[in-house]
Amino acid sequence: MTSDQHDPMDSPRYAEIATFMRAPLVRDVTGLDVAMVGVPFDGAVTNRPGARLGPREIRNQSSNLRKIHPVTRVNPFSAARVADVGDVRLPEIYDLPAVVRDIEAFFAKVCGAGAKPLTAGGDHSITHPILRAVGSERAVGLIQIDAHTDTWDEFLGSPLHHGAPFRRAVEAGVIDPKRTVQIGIRGPQNFTDGWDYSEDSGMTVVFMHEVDQHGLDGVIEIARTVVGDGPTYVSFDIDGIDPTFAPGTGTPEVGGFSSREALALVRGLRGLDVVGADVVEVAPPLDPSGNTALLGATIMYELLCLMVDSTIQGEP
Amino acid sequence: MTSDQHDPMDSPRYAEIATFMRAPLVRDVTGLDVAMVGVPFDGAVTNRPGARLGPREIRNQSSNLRKIHPVTRVNPFSAARVADVGDVRLPEIYDLPAVVRDIEAFFAKVCGAGAKPLTAGGDHSITHPILRAVGSERAVGLIQIDAHTDTWDEFLGSPLHHGAPFRRAVEAGVIDPKRTVQIGIRGPQNFTDGWDYSEDSGMTVVFMHEVDQHGLDGVIEIARTVVGDGPTYVSFDIDGIDPTFAPGTGTPEVGGFSSREALALVRGLRGLDVVGADVVEVAPPLDPSGNTALLGATIMYELLCLMVDSTIQGEP
Amino acid sequence: MTSDQHDPMDSPRYAEIATFMRAPLVRDVTGLDVAMVGVPFDGAVTNRPGARLGPREIRNQSSNLRKIHPVTRVNPFSAARVADVGDVRLPEIYDLPAVVRDIEAFFAKVCGAGAKPLTAGGDHSITHPILRAVGSERAVGLIQIDAHTDTWDEFLGSPLHHGAPFRRAVEAGVIDPKRTVQIGIRGPQNFTDGWDYSEDSGMTVVFMHEVDQHGLDGVIEIARTVVGDGPTYVSFDIDGIDPTFAPGTGTPEVGGFSSREALALVRGLRGLDVVGADVVEVAPPLDPSGNTALLGATIMYELLCLMVDSTIQGEP
Amino acid sequence: MTSDQHDPMDSPRYAEIATFMRAPLVRDVTGLDVAMVGVPFDGAVTNRPGARLGPREIRNQSSNLRKIHPVTRVNPFSAARVADVGDVRLPEIYDLPAVVRDIEAFFAKVCGAGAKPLTAGGDHSITHPILRAVGSERAVGLIQIDAHTDTWDEFLGSPLHHGAPFRRAVEAGVIDPKRTVQIGIRGPQNFTDGWDYSEDSGMTVVFMHEVDQHGLDGVIEIARTVVGDGPTYVSFDIDGIDPTFAPGTGTPEVGGFSSREALALVRGLRGLDVVGADVVEVAPPLDPSGNTALLGATIMYELLCLMVDSTIQGEP
Amino acid sequence: MTSDQHDPMDSPRYAEIATFMRAPLVRDVTGLDVAMVGVPFDGAVTNRPGARLGPREIRNQSSNLRKIHPVTRVNPFSAARVADVGDVRLPEIYDLPAVVRDIEAFFAKVCGAGAKPLTAGGDHSITHPILRAVGSERAVGLIQIDAHTDTWDEFLGSPLHHGAPFRRAVEAGVIDPKRTVQIGIRGPQNFTDGWDYSEDSGMTVVFMHEVDQHGLDGVIEIARTVVGDGPTYVSFDIDGIDPTFAPGTGTPEVGGFSSREALALVRGLRGLDVVGADVVEVAPPLDPSGNTALLGATIMYELLCLMVDSTIQGEP
Amino acid sequence: MTSDQHDPMDSPRYAEIATFMRAPLVRDVTGLDVAMVGVPFDGAVTNRPGARLGPREIRNQSSNLRKIHPVTRVNPFSAARVADVGDVRLPEIYDLPAVVRDIEAFFAKVCGAGAKPLTAGGDHSITHPILRAVGSERAVGLIQIDAHTDTWDEFLGSPLHHGAPFRRAVEAGVIDPKRTVQIGIRGPQNFTDGWDYSEDSGMTVVFMHEVDQHGLDGVIEIARTVVGDGPTYVSFDIDGIDPTFAPGTGTPEVGGFSSREALALVRGLRGLDVVGADVVEVAPPLDPSGNTALLGATIMYELLCLMVDSTIQGEP
Repeated sequence: MTSDQHDPMDSPRYAEIATFMRAPLVRDVTGLDVAMVGVPFDGAVTNRPGARLGPREIRNQSSNLRKIHPVTRVNPFSAARVADVGDVRLPEIYDLPAVVRDIEAFFAKVCGAGAKPLTAGGDHSITHPILRAVGSERAVGLIQIDAHTDTWDEFLGSPLHHGAPFRRAVEAGVIDPKRTVQIGIRGPQNFTDGWDYSEDSGMTVVFMHEVDQHGLDGVIEIARTVVGDGPTYVSFDIDGIDPTFAPGTGTPEVGGFSSREALALVRGLRGLDVVGADVVEVAPPLDPSGNTALLGATIMYELLCLMVDSTIQGEP
Repeated sequence: MTSDQHDPMDSPRYAEIATFMRAPLVRDVTGLDVAMVGVPFDGAVTNRPGARLGPREIRNQSSNLRKIHPVTRVNPFSAARVADVGDVRLPEIYDLPAVVRDIEAFFAKVCGAGAKPLTAGGDHSITHPILRAVGSERAVGLIQIDAHTDTWDEFLGSPLHHGAPFRRAVEAGVIDPKRTVQIGIRGPQNFTDGWDYSEDSGMTVVFMHEVDQHGLDGVIEIARTVVGDGPTYVSFDIDGIDPTFAPGTGTPEVGGFSSREALALVRGLRGLDVVGADVVEVAPPLDPSGNTALLGATIMYELLCLMVDSTIQGEP
Repeated sequence: MTSDQHDPMDSPRYAEIATFMRAPLVRDVTGLDVAMVGVPFDGAVTNRPGARLGPREIRNQSSNLRKIHPVTRVNPFSAARVADVGDVRLPEIYDLPAVVRDIEAFFAKVCGAGAKPLTAGGDHSITHPILRAVGSERAVGLIQIDAHTDTWDEFLGSPLHHGAPFRRAVEAGVIDPKRTVQIGIRGPQNFTDGWDYSEDSGMTVVFMHEVDQHGLDGVIEIARTVVGDGPTYVSFDIDGIDPTFAPGTGTPEVGGFSSREALALVRGLRGLDVVGADVVEVAPPLDPSGNTALLGATIMYELLCLMVDSTIQGEP
Repeated sequence: MTSDQHDPMDSPRYAEIATFMRAPLVRDVTGLDVAMVGVPFDGAVTNRPGARLGPREIRNQSSNLRKIHPVTRVNPFSAARVADVGDVRLPEIYDLPAVVRDIEAFFAKVCGAGAKPLTAGGDHSITHPILRAVGSERAVGLIQIDAHTDTWDEFLGSPLHHGAPFRRAVEAGVIDPKRTVQIGIRGPQNFTDGWDYSEDSGMTVVFMHEVDQHGLDGVIEIARTVVGDGPTYVSFDIDGIDPTFAPGTGTPEVGGFSSREALALVRGLRGLDVVGADVVEVAPPLDPSGNTALLGATIMYELLCLMVDSTIQGEP
Repeated sequence: MTSDQHDPMDSPRYAEIATFMRAPLVRDVTGLDVAMVGVPFDGAVTNRPGARLGPREIRNQSSNLRKIHPVTRVNPFSAARVADVGDVRLPEIYDLPAVVRDIEAFFAKVCGAGAKPLTAGGDHSITHPILRAVGSERAVGLIQIDAHTDTWDEFLGSPLHHGAPFRRAVEAGVIDPKRTVQIGIRGPQNFTDGWDYSEDSGMTVVFMHEVDQHGLDGVIEIARTVVGDGPTYVSFDIDGIDPTFAPGTGTPEVGGFSSREALALVRGLRGLDVVGADVVEVAPPLDPSGNTALLGATIMYELLCLMVDSTIQGEP
Repeated sequence: MTSDQHDPMDSPRYAEIATFMRAPLVRDVTGLDVAMVGVPFDGAVTNRPGARLGPREIRNQSSNLRKIHPVTRVNPFSAARVADVGDVRLPEIYDLPAVVRDIEAFFAKVCGAGAKPLTAGGDHSITHPILRAVGSERAVGLIQIDAHTDTWDEFLGSPLHHGAPFRRAVEAGVIDPKRTVQIGIRGPQNFTDGWDYSEDSGMTVVFMHEVDQHGLDGVIEIARTVVGDGPTYVSFDIDGIDPTFAPGTGTPEVGGFSSREALALVRGLRGLDVVGADVVEVAPPLDPSGNTALLGATIMYELLCLMVDSTIQGEP
C-alpha cells in the first residue's frame, strides 16, 4: 500500500498534490493500520480563530518530511499500512452538537475498521468526539501536551467549546482521569475551575514551572507511570509549545516547550499502547513563516512512529 | 462633546488607547448623533474566519485619520456629537439566533436614543440584526457595496450565515428590495440562487463587469435613483474592493473596486438620508500590511461624513 | 465526471486536499476535454526563484473559486470534462534540455489524447516545451500577456532560460510569429535584442505605455485581429500584472495591468479557438498575502472558461 | 476598582478597546497601587526605530492575558488597585531634554500619589527620567535585563540617547551602582566604554556567556544579593531576550534569553521591594507575528505580580 | 565611467553589493552629471518612523532595474556620467537644525561640482536643506507629488518637522511658490493651515479628487505650465501613491495614485529643466512585500531619465 | 586597512552601502588575512530555493554587528586585514559543472594569495568547490554543523546537488574523513545512504538526539578531538539550527540547535587551526522577520574571530 505515484526518489518534495506526509489518499479505511484524518473546524474557539485551515497547511508543510526515523531507523510507511483518508465532512458547522455527532460518527467508522486514527485539527473541541469513538468500548488513558487543562465547564453559552473537551470526555466515561496526565499547563486564568477539575477528578497535572524541576526525563517517567500499559490516546495541542516556536495558534501562552523538547517528549513515549493521537490548534493565518504547520506536521510524524511501533509490537 | 484628552495638536497619532478615529469612548448613547460600534463576531462565516478581530484593528488604524474632510471641508466631530460606544457584548457566541438577538437589542437601544449607528464588523451576518433595529419602524432603503449578493437561503445548516443577511432582512420587512441596490457583485457561484433572489425580489444588482460600462458616475446615479429621498442604510463589505487593496477578508474575489473608486463611490452618496452604515468583513490576520484595516477605517470616516451631512441637513 | 467527493454544497472551501479548483484528480487523460497540469520548475530563471512552488499554492488558493461564471453563466465543470491530472514528473531538474524533453513528452500525451492543456507554472521556460507539443502538427497563434517579450537568445550560458521560450518556439516552428501578439511589455532592458527579435520576426508587440492609448478594448481588438480564427495558445505571465497586484514573482516590473483589467482582457478573448493556455511565474515565497496565487488561480479559471467555450462551440 | 465593563467571564478577549491587560482606564492616579503607563517615544534610538508604537501594540496583545498567576495563585487585580493611566503626553518630541523633563514630570506625579509605575516603552532612554522620579528621594537599586549596558556617554551628538540612561541615572544620583545588576549583556561593541563604565562605577555585570556558567538560579541569587532588601527598580529591555523570541526590537543581539528563562528570571525576584518597573524597546513594525508584543505584555504581567506582592507584603 | 565590475550581461541581478541601480560607487562628485545620494534620516516624522532605512532598501530593490528606457530607448548610464555617491553623514541625528546644516552642506558640494542630485530619503524634512543647496543662487520651481502639502508651520515643538519643508523653502527664498505645483493632496487634516498656506503663497494645489476631473494629461499640462522653462526640482513623496501600492510609508492616506499613473506622471515631465529630484518617505519596516522600495527605485530611475534628458538637451 | 569611510562612531548602522560587517570592499585579495566572499547560487537545491539571495541579505543584516568580541575582547578588524571581496561571478548558472569550476577558480586565487576565505552562500553545493581550493595541497579536517550529512550520491540526475558536497570532497581527496565531524544531523530520510556513507568513510557523526546526551561541552570536545591540530575547515549550514531560529532555509528540520547553542559551539572551537569557513543555505524569501540572515551574519562574525585568532597565533 505504498504510493507508486510519489516515490520521493523521483519527485522533489514541493511537487504534486499535498497529502499528509505524501501518503496515498484513500477513501476506504478497510485494511489500514493508521488512518490520517483532517478535521477542518474551529467553530468552538474562545479566542482567535484560524485552526479550520490547519489540516490544509499541515498537509502542505508535511511534504518536507521523509520516511525513515533518524533514531529508531523504522520506516512507518513500510512497517504498516498508512494513508490519508481525507477530512471529516461537516454539513452543519454552526451547530456544535451536530459537529460533535458528525466527528464521532466518522471516527467510529475508522475505529470500527480496526484502524488507529491520527488527526490534524481543528480546534481542541474535536478531541472530545474523537475520544467518544476511540474510548467507546473502554475508557482510555490520555497524555495531553497543552498550555491549558481544557477541563472548563460551560463558557460563552456552551459546554462544547474548545476549553472543555476533557471534562466532557470524563463525563462520557471515555477517558480514565486516573490514567490521564496533562503536561505543560501554564498561563494565568480568570478562575481556577479548570485547574481544580483536573486535579479533583484524579488527573495528574504537570505545570510548566514544574517541568524544569522534574527535567524532561522526569516528566516522561511521570507520563509513562500514569498511563501504564493500557490503551492510551495522545493529544498534542500546539499551544503546549512556546508561541515563538508555534505562533500560529489562537490562544498563545508564553513560556512553553521548545520544539526540540517536544520531539523528545513524544519519543519518550515509545512502547506505550498508543491507540490514537492528534495535533490540534494550528492556525495558519497567525503564522507568517509557516513554521507552526511544519512543526505540527513533524509532531504528527513522531506520533505516527509511536503508533506504528505499537502496531508492530501488538502483532503476533 | 469633543475629547479634550486627545487634541491632535498635542499628541502624535500613535499615542494613547485606540478608539474609532480617536473619538471619545462613552457608554451612554444618550444625546449622540452618531454612535460608532464594534461587533467582534465572525461565527457565521462560510469560508475563512478572522473578522472578529476587525473592530480592534480598525480602531488601531483609524488613529491615522484626522478631522476635516479634504473635499467638503466639514469637520464631522464638531458638526455633530460623535462617539465610540464600545463593542456589542455577545455572551453566547456559538448560538447564531442568540447572537442575532443580542445585536438587535443593542442597536435598538442606539436607535431608540436617536443616534445613528456606524458599525465596524465582524462578518456580514451582523447587518441583519442591525437592520432589524434600524428598520423596525419602517423598511429602509439599502446601498450595498459587496462582491456577493448575500441573499442565499440556508447553507451549512443555518439561515443565519454571512451569505444570507439581506434575504433575512427582506423577509423581516426591514429593508425595501425596491429601494435596494447591490454594487460590485462578481465572482463565480456554485448555484445562481443568490443572484436570482436579488433580482426576483426587486433589488437592483450592478455586477462588477457592468461598472466599467456605466462608469462610476453612472453607478452613483443608479444608486441615488434606486434609494431616492427615503431613509437609507449603507452596508460596505470590504470584499467589494479588490483583494489586492483589501487582502484581509475571508471570501476574496479578484477584480473589485480600487480604494480610490471606493472613496468616490461613498462620496457620491452625499445628500442622501443615511440613517446608518457599516463596514464589515475586515479580517486582520489575513492582512500582512494592515492596509485593509486602514482602508476600512477610511471608509468609516467617509460614511461618518455622509451621516453627519444628513444630520446637519435634517436639522431645523 | 464531476467529483462527488467535494460537492461545494456540503463542504466548506477550506476543506480537503487541494486540487485545481476542487476538480477531481485523475491520472489518465483519456476522455478529458481540459487537463489541468502543474509544472513545478523554476530552474531556468535569471533573477529570483520560487515559481517551483507555484502549482502547489495555486491549487491551495483555487479552492476559493466556484463554478458558474458571473458573466456568461456557463459552468465549465458541467459543460466539459475537466480534471486535475497532477504535475509533470521531472527526474533531472538540473539539466535544462532534459527538462524540456520531459515536459514536451508529458504534453504530447495530453494533446495526443485530445485534451487541451491548462497549465500552472513554473517559470516561463516551460511554455517552450508545452508549445512543442501543442504546435507539433501546425504552428499555433499566441496571445502572450507579459512584462517581457521572452525572445532573448542565449543568456548566462544557455538558450533555454525563462527569457527565451518564444524565440525557441519560433525557431521550432511551433508558433506563428505573424499570429503572435505580446501585450503589456515594459520595463528597462540592458539590450534591445528581445524587443528587436519580436518585431523583426513579425510579432505584434503592445507595450504597456501603448495600452492607455489603445484602451483595453483596442488591445483586445488588436489581439483578436492578430490571431484570427486559427488555433491559438494563451500564455499569461503573472508579471504582466503590476507587482502590487502580483508581488509573488521573480522579475517584477512596476506599471502593469490591474487585476480587473487582466480579467477583462482574458474575457475579451471569448470565442477564439483556444487550444491551450498557461499561467506562469507565480512565486509564493515572495507573496506575503497569498494574493498572487489567488490571482493566478482566478486567471486560470477565466482561461478554463475560454477553453470550454471553444470546446462547446467546436462540437457538432 | 475592578472594571465591571470587561468581566472576562462575559466578553471574549479580542473584544473592546485595548487597555493594558484589560484593566480600567483612569486618568487620576490617586488611590492606585500600581499605575500602568505608556511612553510612546523612540526619538533617542541609535539604530532602527519603531518602539514608539510599542505601548499601542503591547496593549493590544495584553488582551490575551488573564488574571490569576499560575504559580502563586495571586490575582493582582483583586489584591491591589491597578489601572491603565494612559500615555505620557510629549508635546516636543524632537527635543530630547524636553522629553526627559516631560516624562520625569509625569512620573513624579505618579510617585507623588503613592502609586508604583509599571511602564511600557518606548526606547530605553525613557528609563532615565522615570528613575529621576522614582529615585528622587533616595537612590534605588536596579535590576536590568538587557543585551547592552546602556552606560555609554554622549553619542551622535547627545548624552540622552537610548544607550546612556543608566550612566545619566548614576550621575543624577537616582540609582545606586553598588545595588545595580545588569544581566544578559552580550554582542560585540565598537569601544569598551559601556562595559568599562558599568564595572568601574561598581555595577555587577552578568554577561550572557556567564549565564550558562552560573545557571539561572545562580543569576537570580546574584541579583537578589546585589539589590538586597532596599527599594529596587526592574528595567527589562526586550533585547535581553534572543531576537528569535523577540524580533521586534531595534538593536537585536543574537544569543539571548529564551522566553521561558525570562519568565523564570522575573519570578525569581519575588519578595524584593520592587518600587517600579518597565518593559522597553518593543518595536512592532519589526515583528511580523506579533509575538514580541505578546512577550512584552506577559513580562509586564509578571512584573505587575512582583509589584503587587511587594505591595501586599509592605502593607500593615 | 560605466562600471566594468557589474556588467549585467555577466552577473545576475541579485549578485554583489547593492548600489543605486548597480551604478558605480564613487566618493568624489567631480565630473558627474548626476549624483545619486542616500539620506538615511527619519528623525523629523510626526507619525510612524522607518524611512531612515529607505536608502538601504531602495538600493537593494533597485538591482531589479536595467538600463534602456522602454519608451525613449535612452540609456541614461551611457548618455551621462551617473554614480552612487553614498549617504550623507549625519553626526548629530537628534538635533534637527544640525541635520539641516549637514544635509545642506553635502548638497552644496554636489551642486558646486556641477552635478545634479537625485536623492533617496529619508523623511520629507530632508528636501528643505536639499533645496537650500539647489536653490541657493536662484529660487527654483517645484513639482511635488504628495498626499500632503507639507507647508505646516511649527508642530510638536519644531519648525523643521517633515510636514513643513516647503514652507521653510519659501521663507528661505529657494523655491518660487508661483512656480510650485503640489499634486495628489488628499486626506483629512486637523486644521487647514497647510492647505491655506500653499494657496495663499501662490502655489498651485491639485487635490486628488481633482485629478479625475482633469485627467492625468490635464494634470501634467498644469504642472508643465506652472513651472515653465525655468530650473525645476521634482520631489516625489511615496505617500502620493495609494498605500496599497506603497504600504511602506509613515503617514499613509487612502486614495492616491496607482503605480502606473505615477510612472506616466513622471514621464509627462520630459523636456523640463529638471535640476534635482528626490523620492522620500519609503519606510521598509512597514512594507512586508518589498514593493514600496521597488516602486521607489523605479520612480528614481524615471527621474534619472528626466534629469539625463535635461542634461543632454542642455549640452551644446 | 580599516575603512575610514564607515567609522561606526560617526555613522549609524543603517547608513551607507552594505558590505559584510561594514568591512571595506576591495577587489584585490593581495595582502588580506581573511577574505569575505559571497556566492549567490542556489541552483543545486533539491527542495525550496532562495539561498542565491543570501549574500545580499547577510550583508544587509551584518550592519547590525560591531567590532570587539564580548568574550575575548579581540577586535578582528584591527588584529588582522579583513575585507569584503565581493561575489564570485558565475557566467553559466544553469551548468553545475561550470559553476563548480568557476567557484573553485575564484577560491584558488584567494588561497593562492594567502588569504583565508570566509564565505556566505548560497546552497551547500558551493562548499565542494571551495574545499577543492582550500584542500588542494593537503586534505583538511572538517567541522560541519548541519541537519543533513550531505553525503548522498547522485540525485535528480546529478552528483553535484546540495546534498552531496562532502562525498565529492572525500572522493577528491580534499577533506580527510577521519578528521571530519558532522554535528546536529537529524530528520527522517528516504534512504540511509547518506548516514551510511558518512560512517563508512570514517567520519564522526553526532546526531542531534545525541547532543543532549553528550552535552554541548561534550560535543565540542568530540569535535576538537576529531580534527586535532591540523588545518580545519568549518562549514555551518544554517539548517543545523532549529527552523524557529532560522526559518529562512530551504530544507528545514525541526529540532535543531538554538542560536545561543550555535554561538557557544563556534566559540568552543577557539584555538583550532581554522583555514576557512562558510555559512550556507540562508534563504531570505522564506524569512519574514529577517532573523535568519542576522543569525547567519552573527555566526560569520564568530567564525571570523576564530579565523583571526588562528592567524594571530600562527604568526611568528
